[in-house]
Amino acid sequence: MNSVANFAQPVDAVAPIARDAFRNAMAKMGAAVNIITTDGPAGRAGFAATAVCSVTDSPATLLICLNRTASVFDAVIGNGVICVNVLASAHEDLSNLFGGKTSVDARFAAAEWRQGKSGTPVLCDALVSFECRISAEADIGTHRVLYCTVEEIHDGSDAEALIYFQRAYRRVGG
Amino acid sequence: MNSVANFAQPVDAVAPIARDAFRNAMAKMGAAVNIITTDGPAGRAGFAATAVCSVTDSPATLLICLNRTASVFDAVIGNGVICVNVLASAHEDLSNLFGGKTSVDARFAAAEWRQGKSGTPVLCDALVSFECRISAEADIGTHRVLYCTVEEIHDGSDAEALIYFQRAYRRVGG
Repeated sequence: MNSVANFAQPVDAVAPIARDAFRNAMAKMGAAVNIITTDGPAGRAGFAATAVCSVTDSPATLLICLNRTASVFDAVIGNGVICVNVLASAHEDLSNLFGGKTSVDARFAAAEWRQGKSGTPVLCDALVSFECRISAEADIGTHRVLYCTVEEIHDGSDAEALIYFQRAYRRVGG
Repeated sequence: MNSVANFAQPVDAVAPIARDAFRNAMAKMGAAVNIITTDGPAGRAGFAATAVCSVTDSPATLLICLNRTASVFDAVIGNGVICVNVLASAHEDLSNLFGGKTSVDARFAAAEWRQGKSGTPVLCDALVSFECRISAEADIGTHRVLYCTVEEIHDGSDAEALIYFQRAYRRVGG
């Protein structure tokens, strides 16, 4: 309780956690599957992501974590706007497409979209979609964390959700 | 596609999203339920949280979002170390206890814990637990985002996971 010397200071050197050990452990933290889209001066792009998190409702803000070497990185940063589309259980194939090596055009051809106010593609049958503007950024290790102010919400279907847990798709709710 | 004037600039003033609208929409993004614990000079504390997200595996880092007015805030920041315990489906009552108004002692008395290397309480039957040290912070609206370097992983049971979706507990996997 009294020692300032122990305050948030590592006492001993700590061996770094191996990448595989971290990935295997994180696989046990289930997460919603989303398709994140962007469009604008830097081009159209979209990718599947589970690293999305609510931050605060005042002002309505979420964050996404994006590898700075991802093929979609320049488009996302260049446009400054994204749409987070929360997937339903029926979107398993779409998730695989947006998580693979398929071309941008082939990805978007596999589903129905409408253009949001921000110009981003909104997935017509998502559970819910958040049109967002990137408001702050932080580089952490290999990734950039993008804080995104929500500007528009499109409430969608009440279908079952698509959850990724232990490296497999799961269906919940409905 | 070509106008630099539109590049990441709001064209019109955008009406802020109402808190309830944001919360109702975020309820459709399912998430794992975790109990986050801390102990050290600033005291023992623990709380249930879904706002946890993987950031990068190099170095192994996750983040949590914490309301700056939360009762546990001073303990978490003061200690600088946390343990993220990923809950199994059997932990529904424990989650309610750590998300409610129960005293710290009563919360911890309801489950079995061991002390991690960081001094944080590790839940004995969690799916997996991450002992972490807070390495960076960012204030966003009402919340503080804590970037946490993972120093120790305790792999646990392979039970079903506890997922929160549409304001109800769900069980997945196993």
